[in-house]
Amino acid sequence: MRQRVIIHSVTPEIEGGRYYIKRVPGEWIHVACTAFGDGHDYIRLALRYKHFDDKDWATINMTEGTEPDSWSADFQVTKEGFYKYEVEGWVDQLLHWHEGFKKKVADGQHMNVELEIGASLLQKAAKGYDKKVAAKLNKLAKSLTDSKRYPAAVREVLTEAFAKTIYDYPLLQFVTTYDQNLRVRVGRNKELFSAWYELFPRAASPSDKRPGTFKDVEKLLPRIAEMGFDVLYMPPVHPVGELNRKGKNNNVTAEKGEPGSPWAIGSKHGGHKAINPELGTLADYKRLIKKAKKDHDIEIALDLAYQCAPDHPWIKEHPSWFVWRPDGTIAYAENPPKKYQDIVPINFESDDWENLWDALLDIVLFWNKQGVKIFRVDNPHTKAFRFWEWLIAKAQEQDPDIIFLAEAFTRPAVMLELAKLGYTQSYSYFVWRKNPQEMRKYVEELSSSPLRDVMRPNFWPNTPDILPHELMGEGYGMFMLRLALAATLSSNYGLYGPAYEFMENEGADTGKDEYHNSEKYEVRHYDWKRRNRLTDFMTRLNKARKAHPALQTTYNVTFTETNNPALQSYVKISGKSIIWCVVNWDGHRTQEGHVQTPWESFGLKTPTTLRCKDLLTGETYYWKQDWNWVSLDPDRWPMHLLEITIA
Amino acid sequence: MRQRVIIHSVTPEIEGGRYYIKRVPGEWIHVACTAFGDGHDYIRLALRYKHFDDKDWATINMTEGTEPDSWSADFQVTKEGFYKYEVEGWVDQLLHWHEGFKKKVADGQHMNVELEIGASLLQKAAKGYDKKVAAKLNKLAKSLTDSKRYPAAVREVLTEAFAKTIYDYPLLQFVTTYDQNLRVRVGRNKELFSAWYELFPRAASPSDKRPGTFKDVEKLLPRIAEMGFDVLYMPPVHPVGELNRKGKNNNVTAEKGEPGSPWAIGSKHGGHKAINPELGTLADYKRLIKKAKKDHDIEIALDLAYQCAPDHPWIKEHPSWFVWRPDGTIAYAENPPKKYQDIVPINFESDDWENLWDALLDIVLFWNKQGVKIFRVDNPHTKAFRFWEWLIAKAQEQDPDIIFLAEAFTRPAVMLELAKLGYTQSYSYFVWRKNPQEMRKYVEELSSSPLRDVMRPNFWPNTPDILPHELMGEGYGMFMLRLALAATLSSNYGLYGPAYEFMENEGADTGKDEYHNSEKYEVRHYDWKRRNRLTDFMTRLNKARKAHPALQTTYNVTFTETNNPALQSYVKISGKSIIWCVVNWDGHRTQEGHVQTPWESFGLKTPTTLRCKDLLTGETYYWKQDWNWVSLDPDRWPMHLLEITIA
Repeated sequence: MRQRVIIHSVTPEIEGGRYYIKRVPGEWIHVACTAFGDGHDYIRLALRYKHFDDKDWATINMTEGTEPDSWSADFQVTKEGFYKYEVEGWVDQLLHWHEGFKKKVADGQHMNVELEIGASLLQKAAKGYDKKVAAKLNKLAKSLTDSKRYPAAVREVLTEAFAKTIYDYPLLQFVTTYDQNLRVRVGRNKELFSAWYELFPRAASPSDKRPGTFKDVEKLLPRIAEMGFDVLYMPPVHPVGELNRKGKNNNVTAEKGEPGSPWAIGSKHGGHKAINPELGTLADYKRLIKKAKKDHDIEIALDLAYQCAPDHPWIKEHPSWFVWRPDGTIAYAENPPKKYQDIVPINFESDDWENLWDALLDIVLFWNKQGVKIFRVDNPHTKAFRFWEWLIAKAQEQDPDIIFLAEAFTRPAVMLELAKLGYTQSYSYFVWRKNPQEMRKYVEELSSSPLRDVMRPNFWPNTPDILPHELMGEGYGMFMLRLALAATLSSNYGLYGPAYEFMENEGADTGKDEYHNSEKYEVRHYDWKRRNRLTDFMTRLNKARKAHPALQTTYNVTFTETNNPALQSYVKISGKSIIWCVVNWDGHRTQEGHVQTPWESFGLKTPTTLRCKDLLTGETYYWKQDWNWVSLDPDRWPMHLLEITIA
Repeated sequence: MRQRVIIHSVTPEIEGGRYYIKRVPGEWIHVACTAFGDGHDYIRLALRYKHFDDKDWATINMTEGTEPDSWSADFQVTKEGFYKYEVEGWVDQLLHWHEGFKKKVADGQHMNVELEIGASLLQKAAKGYDKKVAAKLNKLAKSLTDSKRYPAAVREVLTEAFAKTIYDYPLLQFVTTYDQNLRVRVGRNKELFSAWYELFPRAASPSDKRPGTFKDVEKLLPRIAEMGFDVLYMPPVHPVGELNRKGKNNNVTAEKGEPGSPWAIGSKHGGHKAINPELGTLADYKRLIKKAKKDHDIEIALDLAYQCAPDHPWIKEHPSWFVWRPDGTIAYAENPPKKYQDIVPINFESDDWENLWDALLDIVLFWNKQGVKIFRVDNPHTKAFRFWEWLIAKAQEQDPDIIFLAEAFTRPAVMLELAKLGYTQSYSYFVWRKNPQEMRKYVEELSSSPLRDVMRPNFWPNTPDILPHELMGEGYGMFMLRLALAATLSSNYGLYGPAYEFMENEGADTGKDEYHNSEKYEVRHYDWKRRNRLTDFMTRLNKARKAHPALQTTYNVTFTETNNPALQSYVKISGKSIIWCVVNWDGHRTQEGHVQTPWESFGLKTPTTLRCKDLLTGETYYWKQDWNWVSLDPDRWPMHLLEITIA
């Protein structure tokens, strides 16, 4: 009850410690709080943290900021797994006495009694330390009260060494611990740094004579690796429902031979644990996973779409996992007045929910055992929130390397909630940020609490569901621009690959950001032998990303000034790795102007010469002015991607 | 685990429900939160609240705001005591079905099965209600599925009456309750609306022949009541220490006969439960309390200064409650290198703290039994925070009418903390807000969360410790200005009365905001028969405050536009009570200009004629323009205090 230090408003803290925050090894956590003692007491604070596996806490002294009563410190996580952190505060009577001592000496007071008080406080402090430290403090205490040493003892108290001693070995009394079970989950590096390439395996065929298979995908691996991608994501690879199958362009009925949407999962060939026989066998799939990893360091991401085609085996095996209408028919997915008759949603309100949840978890564990460590989750916001929290925790218990990417394009609060529940990465609003101001605001929001601590964005300029208006009918200029933004502003980014690379730019006539002749409903053929300027551009971007730590995090960006609103400039700095991006947002015309050198961001007090090597063109500039001239022709390069070396 | 509605970011909520918020009867609480369900479900939310004494909860439907997923509702507290409130959310399948139904009808679909689904949902809903409602819902269900009524049943579902029924009697499934023990303490009205007059009882003498006594104070009561004050606050009335007594102007030694500072409490005549014999007896004090209340509706506030003079009886009785130095001397209050030898602080770190706390509580309970219901607490921030939380709760358990005013002029976080711990009112930074911008910003901050919910400001233009530079050497203009601001911007305000009324304006030569010849250290005599323009001004202000509800709260202010920066305009509206203040911040020169009519604040869509009666001068203006001309001569009136009547 005598607790003397008040500590509150600790950040980062998500809902009072209800959810953990996220990092990868090497990242830092800036812990801040409001703290104070009563009266004129001196308080001190320490940040304590430990890996769950460690026995002992590490401790870092917190420092008071310019705002009164605001304290902070930073700690770095180095190992995967979970860390705890907490704030400890105490009334530092030794420090209080020391500060008063200095003022009284300056005032010319006689210090005998003050020395005695100090000695007794040092002795008290000694009790809290091991023998060696205790001996040191007790010796110091004794020397203060040795009457023969007056006034030398007074001078000793005023030394820096004395100040350091009582700072390093504080008198820990009236300790208050702010412990709200604050946790950090530290995942593998790929959680923060990944480049995704999405393709429909049925489009992997080398010719238009037949649809592609896993074996065809295998043959594309060198090509994808050469471009520098490290995640290959394929839409669901399970049997496609035959009942109510959709045709080309989302037609209500499929013609004979049409392949259907792979998201309509399940048929007589099996459900979520089966492989679509048209793509190959489970053995083929497993070989693809192994080969991708072993030969190309590419991971295969599975699409986790928890919904069923009307002929999914579960519908007969577990009718209670679905909603049935009074006329005995099953309830299809719907968005009234529209019905989606090729899809049956799972009923998370089922009375048999415990078995249902177990079965859904079992799917993840099954594929994980086949070698899958990345799951792209389809529409997670239409399933029970608590389910995801449970599923992700259970799955990562079996394999902490499992990554879940949330495909939820919905309201901000819901996107954030999914991230809080444990999603490793999240699709983002990137595709709808259409000018430099919007983009800057969004990236800054993503880099600020609470988003920065739980929601890792993944920037996609297109998906099979989304062809933004900005790209419809467009050519290299716009396609390179959106790609450049995604690959440099977010350390996680991805492409619906062939459609982007080969510049599919025909929009649907629905007025929405959609593809005409969507590949979701038909087999597409690409000329995989072809390589164009986008292939080359992707390759250069991914190469730069792999070589430069500054491009391997999303949270190190600072936007800087230009004198042309069509030019956007930002620097990304990670230690000695400095990247400076200047983007021409005008996809059609050359834009020229000046960009300001952010000397301060570079840690420079006075201007010096910067060596700026463009990682795209290979050209090198030497900039030493406050403002530097740039000219960007969108048909050649939409950006300067400058590696900065300080001369 | 199937919990379906996510509810978070509930406001008001102080540290996750750790502390209660504050209101008086008649005030409202605006409860807001972020809430959503998964998928496309319709959710609904209800705000639930109840007085601790009530058996049943009252329920108010919350509505969604323009920001997605943001919900809110307001409830009014009417009784003193504690209330609880919480938010309840549920997935409303009936509403979901109804919305789909309307779209499907518009699409021309056959609705037979939909009617059956609706009927079954209505039957489900019926189970949650009493017989009468259940019968109504079941009857409705039956009518929907009566095949002879098709398509009349479809039309019925589309009626407003049907929509109202399912809104009023929702199907309560998957209910989530956000219950963080959120509490409101509702205190008596004086907590929010009070006018304090401070005087030293020893200054109450009708002549300069002798110091004043309680009996003299009694004779001043009609004068104070006539001016309209309702709290009479006297500095400590306990025996003043004789050891190390301070002299005039804070001299280290008192001359013989000097009275000392009343905050140096305790002598051979007793401690905190004793009465200074120079002021009278306990019986005198009790009679003063009774008479003030009975004849004048004035309450007497006691100064609670938990510190001791060196000759306070406790120092011998309870040496462990104080800090002793190694040389056997007691530790005086100090701010190194300064020592305050007339004051000994209490040691809240004492090992005997439980007995100490009990003794300190006993002081409050003792004076409460003598009739004291208001305590002005001296320097609470220099005592243990947890102690205050405990003391205030214990005291208000004995008598919920007890008011504690925190005299803490310190950092914002500490002032807020004391309020969170339970202080009813707080001295504020008012005296240091010295221009219209600063004042507006401060008042708006006080009216916003979290301050609005826990910290009730009390605006004092002076105290015995504070004569602001703005008033030094000044005359009626500046004195009326600061008074007008305090009395209209805060419903709680106070004055160090006679010094203000008689315009003591001589500052100390310390450079600080202090009085020369501070009354703290000497006996002052005032000519109590005298009445001047300030006496008159206070009287008019207090009369206006008592007559107009708009001046009885701090939280109804809206600042409005003027075209002269020296003129500040604000309206205060409480129901039909509308007050419009226009202040001339220039204490020396007449300022003229135009003030804009805030039609919208007045609830008017088109301009009309406003009757503006100046409550200070009695003059009436009729304003109907968007901009109205004013001229304020500070030597006459520093403000227009306009009662607005809408014609």
